[in-house]
Amino acid sequence: MFRVESAIERVKGFRVAGVHAGLKPDNAPDFALVRADRACAAAGVFTTNTVKAAPVLFNMARLDDDPANIRAVAINTVSANACTGKQGMTNSRRMAELIAEHSGLDASQVLVMSTGVIGTQLPMSKIECGAELSTSRLAQDWETTARAIMTTDTRPKLASTQVLTSAGEYTIAGISKGSGMIAPNMATMLGIVVTDAALTPDQTQQALTAANRASFNRIVVDGDTSTNDMVVLLASGASGVDMTTESDMAQFTAGLTAVCRKLAQDIVRDGEGATKFITLDVRNAGSEENAARIAHTIAASPLVKTAFFGNDANVGRLIAAAGRAGVSFNPETAALWLAAGESLEEDDRGLLLFEYGMFIAYSEAAATEIIQDESVYVTLDCGAGPGSAIVWTCDLSHEYVSINADYRT
Amino acid sequence: MFRVESAIERVKGFRVAGVHAGLKPDNAPDFALVRADRACAAAGVFTTNTVKAAPVLFNMARLDDDPANIRAVAINTVSANACTGKQGMTNSRRMAELIAEHSGLDASQVLVMSTGVIGTQLPMSKIECGAELSTSRLAQDWETTARAIMTTDTRPKLASTQVLTSAGEYTIAGISKGSGMIAPNMATMLGIVVTDAALTPDQTQQALTAANRASFNRIVVDGDTSTNDMVVLLASGASGVDMTTESDMAQFTAGLTAVCRKLAQDIVRDGEGATKFITLDVRNAGSEENAARIAHTIAASPLVKTAFFGNDANVGRLIAAAGRAGVSFNPETAALWLAAGESLEEDDRGLLLFEYGMFIAYSEAAATEIIQDESVYVTLDCGAGPGSAIVWTCDLSHEYVSINADYRT
Repeated sequence: MFRVESAIERVKGFRVAGVHAGLKPDNAPDFALVRADRACAAAGVFTTNTVKAAPVLFNMARLDDDPANIRAVAINTVSANACTGKQGMTNSRRMAELIAEHSGLDASQVLVMSTGVIGTQLPMSKIECGAELSTSRLAQDWETTARAIMTTDTRPKLASTQVLTSAGEYTIAGISKGSGMIAPNMATMLGIVVTDAALTPDQTQQALTAANRASFNRIVVDGDTSTNDMVVLLASGASGVDMTTESDMAQFTAGLTAVCRKLAQDIVRDGEGATKFITLDVRNAGSEENAARIAHTIAASPLVKTAFFGNDANVGRLIAAAGRAGVSFNPETAALWLAAGESLEEDDRGLLLFEYGMFIAYSEAAATEIIQDESVYVTLDCGAGPGSAIVWTCDLSHEYVSINADYRT
Repeated sequence: MFRVESAIERVKGFRVAGVHAGLKPDNAPDFALVRADRACAAAGVFTTNTVKAAPVLFNMARLDDDPANIRAVAINTVSANACTGKQGMTNSRRMAELIAEHSGLDASQVLVMSTGVIGTQLPMSKIECGAELSTSRLAQDWETTARAIMTTDTRPKLASTQVLTSAGEYTIAGISKGSGMIAPNMATMLGIVVTDAALTPDQTQQALTAANRASFNRIVVDGDTSTNDMVVLLASGASGVDMTTESDMAQFTAGLTAVCRKLAQDIVRDGEGATKFITLDVRNAGSEENAARIAHTIAASPLVKTAFFGNDANVGRLIAAAGRAGVSFNPETAALWLAAGESLEEDDRGLLLFEYGMFIAYSEAAATEIIQDESVYVTLDCGAGPGSAIVWTCDLSHEYVSINADYRT
């Protein structure tokens, strides 16, 4: 439907920068800025973790206050500014002020994000350096900007799409980061999405909430939900295309969903230590919520994930994980299929493994061949009435353990 | 309070056997039988997984039918008899019949348990062999019996205690197995507990439910809940000591809890690939249920577990995991301590790391020294009013990934 590119050429009304502020030990970019030429309508979705990082609380309050007048988003790496108390809030506020001071904005127009280790205070002299450098180097280099928000990510994550309407063309583009501590819950790891379409704050929130539910909220790397997850959407209106009809909004939301989904899937592809991209397509679970819960439980199961890593079609673990999701369904009406690839062709679900409450006499060799593919598509039909959800996840490898056994060293 | 031994010398009214029935490729014992000389009052707790294995459904029905007349529990390894449909139920019933035929019991007096791979049918000729051998070799060799129910366990798990009362002495003893797919939910991996005390079926169920809540339901290895979890308690009454007062029952329940706790902790100590024994003591979470939920979430967090494996005091992950448990608490009133060892001495919680919503300036060297211990005690006080729970867990190592990447090969 929408052709989504892995790069961003230009979005009208926005300039960006990714700079080295001395946060990371090497010379890698570690501080990013997304700057709008005019006031944007803005919306955000935020982590549901009870323990919220200072920048999350800061942005929630700011968008609550005035979502029609946002001009910039600044992002630092290395320190998550989470579990940092009053000093943490002061530092987030100061980070916004520094950006404002260096770029002639009001501090109330600036959002901030932080990612990195939990429990350390922001190194403010480096944040000051980042604010000064980033505000003086604004351009259209989206790739360096995407690199500047990476932590354990091995590659930058960018997505963009052009939407052609009778009133003209507009762009939706975004960057994200995330590789571990990924089980977004009503929110996600950091994501910044911009558009030159014209939307009201209500429209931005409505579109972002819908897109998020079908993208960032549908991925799992390890089942841990971060204290810092958030995605913001800024709409500059520079394209001159506004949303006058419901159909305009439906089109925008679909385009936004396509961009967010690409960014979310890229997080799974780049999951810490991941060797496999797994799609969990849970159908007829009685409700979308039930389906998502079952799919999330399978996605977070260490036993499912290690079996995928070992190319072992130990499919009983899929059923066992589905069964402990806290959703009641009758195994007698459930069925399970495995297929290779990232999507189904003409809804061919592949190899049938399980139905009527038991595993059938399928070919173990055929199952093993499928599971050796770098992408595996699992379809579970619960037979409990309408309600489906797709969750994307990855496997659990030795590399994941190595990365996280000494993340801070 | 109760001196719990890691061995079982003898329990009046019970004989046991662990034999090699050809299920495991080597000559290891792989089929076990616990046989009572007289009819026992029996109780069980079972997995809450929506997908329940045939032996779970079989025993649930049997205990529902007549919990006052149980004489034997037979256990096979290698095949879990889960997701096996009607054939699976037929096979569980046949397994009970085989034990009854070979030992002059009625089939309705026999319970069965299975553990192993999900999705394969029981190899009935080997089950027949196991029934024949085990019924002819009954003795007091509890250790071989405990070995005969092991799968990825590296050591047998036994516990026993003597309870002295004014009416005489009785014994509570049990065996268990489990190492992976451990996150029991109102039940556990396989456990068989026996006593020569005299209890009614209601009393056995009441005591087992209470003990289970403070033992098997408080351990996590990997967060996956099995389709086959169950614990049964058989009371033979052969000691002649019965439960006439509430105080008798309180004493029995405390003794049973001590035995179950030892068996549960041994499962964590023998967790797949585990290098560390971790106690999560969550206090003042508003309710026991809240506290247990927070502790379970921390226990299942891959990021917490890998940090422990890496001897990295990345304690922000403990707070982040607590925050995503779905329990609301105010980080401003929470506090976190770390100590070495399996228990606190005189309630000295050790090194204070976090209070008033932020990490304090603690000594990183002191935290690292604690975390290098083979046992670590974490105390989290949520400051949200009464309600505490202790959960025992282990770390997540390379060995866990290796074991589960090719479990079936």
